[in-house]
Amino acid sequence: MRKTFALVSLLGGMASILPAHAQFAKPEDAIKYRKASLTVMATHFGRLGAMAQGKAPFDAKAAADNADVLAVVSRLPWAAFGEGTDKGETRAKPEIWKEAAKFKDAADKNQAEVAKLVAAAKTGNLDNLKAAFGPAAQTCKACHDNFRKD
Amino acid sequence: MRKTFALVSLLGGMASILPAHAQFAKPEDAIKYRKASLTVMATHFGRLGAMAQGKAPFDAKAAADNADVLAVVSRLPWAAFGEGTDKGETRAKPEIWKEAAKFKDAADKNQAEVAKLVAAAKTGNLDNLKAAFGPAAQTCKACHDNFRKD
Repeated sequence: MRKTFALVSLLGGMASILPAHAQFAKPEDAIKYRKASLTVMATHFGRLGAMAQGKAPFDAKAAADNADVLAVVSRLPWAAFGEGTDKGETRAKPEIWKEAAKFKDAADKNQAEVAKLVAAAKTGNLDNLKAAFGPAAQTCKACHDNFRKD
Repeated sequence: MRKTFALVSLLGGMASILPAHAQFAKPEDAIKYRKASLTVMATHFGRLGAMAQGKAPFDAKAAADNADVLAVVSRLPWAAFGEGTDKGETRAKPEIWKEAAKFKDAADKNQAEVAKLVAAAKTGNLDNLKAAFGPAAQTCKACHDNFRKD
């Protein structure tokens, strides 16, 4: 019984360290998927930003709806930056793989700030949204500046 | 008071019949977004399909995770087929706008079957997943056959 549990734990641990692109049949599938998920993420992030910056009227229902989508899609792109997905139709810089710890840190920071933005957007209070948007946007920019070609 | 309520209802009604692309600054933004959301949708749909068809081992946790993503992203593409988004980098057939009621019916059927698939994938039972996958896949195919260029 204890042995079975140990084996299951080991397999669980192994699964989480499998190369992420193993989820994709081909590297180009991973590249297409991460671009797509970042596009969806940016769209809903942008709609919150428009409200935060006064470019669109604040609508608490719309803010909460966009936050619900953002909460899910903002988790998706990162698993698609696996080994072997550095070539092809991509603006990803080699630093993503050469400085993997730095990239992971930037992605983690983004996820943390986006989570705060999601929570703020669901309070129905524009001031909360405004306060959370800037720091989240900074984490997008930091990653683009360091890890995306112009 | 009653007047205010009536006006709010009217405005609410109007908002829901605004052209969908009003959410997008440019038609090409809507086209990029709908392609992106369909790519993300197809990826997670495909992972459920691989398990349903025995091409990947059944993993209840992975099935539930993919279902959670699918539940959110499968709602996204449809609002991006607004008026004026029929030209450009798109395989969308003119029938989407010429036979709008038929397209809406096809999209609604897809959403209904995907909702059933999501529920099935979250039961942790492979037979449920298998039973729900085929009908959902049929609604993808029907829409592609009728409304997407080769």
